Amino acid sequence: MRLSDIGELSLLETIRRRFTRKSGGVIVGIGDDAAVIKPQDKKLLITTDMMVERVHFDLNFTTPYQLGFKLVSVNVSDIYAMGGVPQYLLLDIAMNKTTEEAFVDSFFDGIQDAIKLYGISLIGGDISSSKKDMVAAASLIGHAENPVKRSGAKPGDKIYVTGNLGDSAGGLEVLKRIKKTVPIENTPSPSLPPRGGGMGGGDNSKLQIIISKLSKSGLTWNTIVPLLKRHLMPIARNPIGFVKYATAMIDLSDGLFIDLSRLCNESRVGARIYMKQIPISSQMKKVSSVLGLNPFNLAASGGEDYELLFTAPPDYKPRAMSHELKITCIGEITKKDRVVVDETGRESILKTAGYQHFGIKRQT
Amino acid sequence: MRLSDIGELSLLETIRRRFTRKSGGVIVGIGDDAAVIKPQDKKLLITTDMMVERVHFDLNFTTPYQLGFKLVSVNVSDIYAMGGVPQYLLLDIAMNKTTEEAFVDSFFDGIQDAIKLYGISLIGGDISSSKKDMVAAASLIGHAENPVKRSGAKPGDKIYVTGNLGDSAGGLEVLKRIKKTVPIENTPSPSLPPRGGGMGGGDNSKLQIIISKLSKSGLTWNTIVPLLKRHLMPIARNPIGFVKYATAMIDLSDGLFIDLSRLCNESRVGARIYMKQIPISSQMKKVSSVLGLNPFNLAASGGEDYELLFTAPPDYKPRAMSHELKITCIGEITKKDRVVVDETGRESILKTAGYQHFGIKRQT
Repeated sequence: MRLSDIGELSLLETIRRRFTRKSGGVIVGIGDDAAVIKPQDKKLLITTDMMVERVHFDLNFTTPYQLGFKLVSVNVSDIYAMGGVPQYLLLDIAMNKTTEEAFVDSFFDGIQDAIKLYGISLIGGDISSSKKDMVAAASLIGHAENPVKRSGAKPGDKIYVTGNLGDSAGGLEVLKRIKKTVPIENTPSPSLPPRGGGMGGGDNSKLQIIISKLSKSGLTWNTIVPLLKRHLMPIARNPIGFVKYATAMIDLSDGLFIDLSRLCNESRVGARIYMKQIPISSQMKKVSSVLGLNPFNLAASGGEDYELLFTAPPDYKPRAMSHELKITCIGEITKKDRVVVDETGRESILKTAGYQHFGIKRQT
Repeated sequence: MRLSDIGELSLLETIRRRFTRKSGGVIVGIGDDAAVIKPQDKKLLITTDMMVERVHFDLNFTTPYQLGFKLVSVNVSDIYAMGGVPQYLLLDIAMNKTTEEAFVDSFFDGIQDAIKLYGISLIGGDISSSKKDMVAAASLIGHAENPVKRSGAKPGDKIYVTGNLGDSAGGLEVLKRIKKTVPIENTPSPSLPPRGGGMGGGDNSKLQIIISKLSKSGLTWNTIVPLLKRHLMPIARNPIGFVKYATAMIDLSDGLFIDLSRLCNESRVGARIYMKQIPISSQMKKVSSVLGLNPFNLAASGGEDYELLFTAPPDYKPRAMSHELKITCIGEITKKDRVVVDETGRESILKTAGYQHFGIKRQT
């Protein structure tokens, strides 16, 4: 059944029933002119992020479940990057009326699993038809007692990143070669929600084809899955373990160098980054080697890492945390210049390559 | 100059400079991962609305200035419909990279004039390219001590609407015949912001052509302008004069009958509407007569009125207010059935015709 057979009102009713569970602080949820939430005694954080078909995603490469999951994660990542707790989500979705009901269900499965994972509530939104491309935007409200801005970095602070960089970009490179959706939402992982998406769910024959294609190219399923997951269904990094030490923070969405430059601009400081300290996963190295790519470029400019970059005073020592979020020092804040030190110790000016909309790819 | 020559970062910088004025409660505005606003001691209202090219608007019919203005108004209308005060706005804009800089400037002129009119602040957003259609979504945060829900109407309450109904639908019918943008942002009116839009601004020769075309069809400029304004640049209705009496409220976006039915559904009540009491402007009557349309249909199902419908106990008496917002009683809340009483006194079941996305036009 397609949306043109269901109609807007029935679709809204279905969504409302699915997300009707009232949670802390929600006085009026979906179904009125505006949502109502109780007064807040902490500072409010508000962010919004949009995903446009054929710009941010390709429905030949991503399942609707993955898309819904990612839409929530990229917004949560922004709230985490302020040191905050995400709480209330609003969605704006425009879909072609030929869209299948199963697609919509699967998309909302991804939304639902993600908001469960992060402990947030869907409180409202707007659903519309579109003539061609799908557009999905989310606005997310959270709170923080002491928000961590981009502007607090001081010369002498060390620069840290969570996780590994370039995994998402590596995953995208793999996807470009597989050229089809990969139902990774069904692969077991302790950090992933249990439910698979409707569209790709349980499609084992498809999986077999992909695996056999991979082995011919010298890559294994186990090598590519972590990268595909980081690209298709990133899990936002909760900074709770180090937030009280962070002097400035930003999430890495457009690429390490461009996002670091933004933090430096706001803090009016420089930075020195040590190439050899940038954390790169063994899987990304393997994929880069097989595909003939430069892993350093993917890590520095690939974008969509959704890892956190933060600065902390020299006396801060990252601890190995129980939830195993890796934290790596990649350099230090300086007074003015922004430089990269390569593996031979040679310094060069940091070029802020990274994705820009409207076609300009590089600015220094 | 086109967006492809300007690039995302320069565009963001321009927007940030334009909207950088800090206002009450904004701790961090545009330019960080999320906006930060001070703790709120009143209940928070949150709404979002999206406008999709070729679905909600046609750039052959609307100027970018009008589009920006309307995007803000439709969101403000939702906050007003809860009896709230609008405060903080976030934007999600996707535009084709061939978009001219003058178009973008004019769009943001419309946004800026509207947020000035309503006393709100732009605190963040997301700008993206799109492959084809433009999409503009806004999320708006406000506050209210006692939000007015859709669910509070009681049998015996009277039903009121602000302004006139069907003016917007009448304006759309006129536009469909003019088949071009009309620079009404330049026409003097005490209720409109002073600044005109860049794209249509001062284009007198175009205006002359439209006026001459109109006079041939028997319509005058003065007849159509109020309708075009209501369609292209609606001003949201502030309920401040009657909010304390309202037991339930909704804004009329999809059509009187469909929106009234929503309010009845939430309140679990019926309604009796008197056709002859529905306020219809003399201009809309004139346009309907010239174009051969039924003014009652436009008023009952036209949609995009952005007037408020509210219910109040029988002892409430609307007063003529200093800001001259007309309030008209159009019927009363009943226990169960939803009926329309026509001019001859005959009752019929209220059919909820109105716009629905995905192509289903009628549900009862």
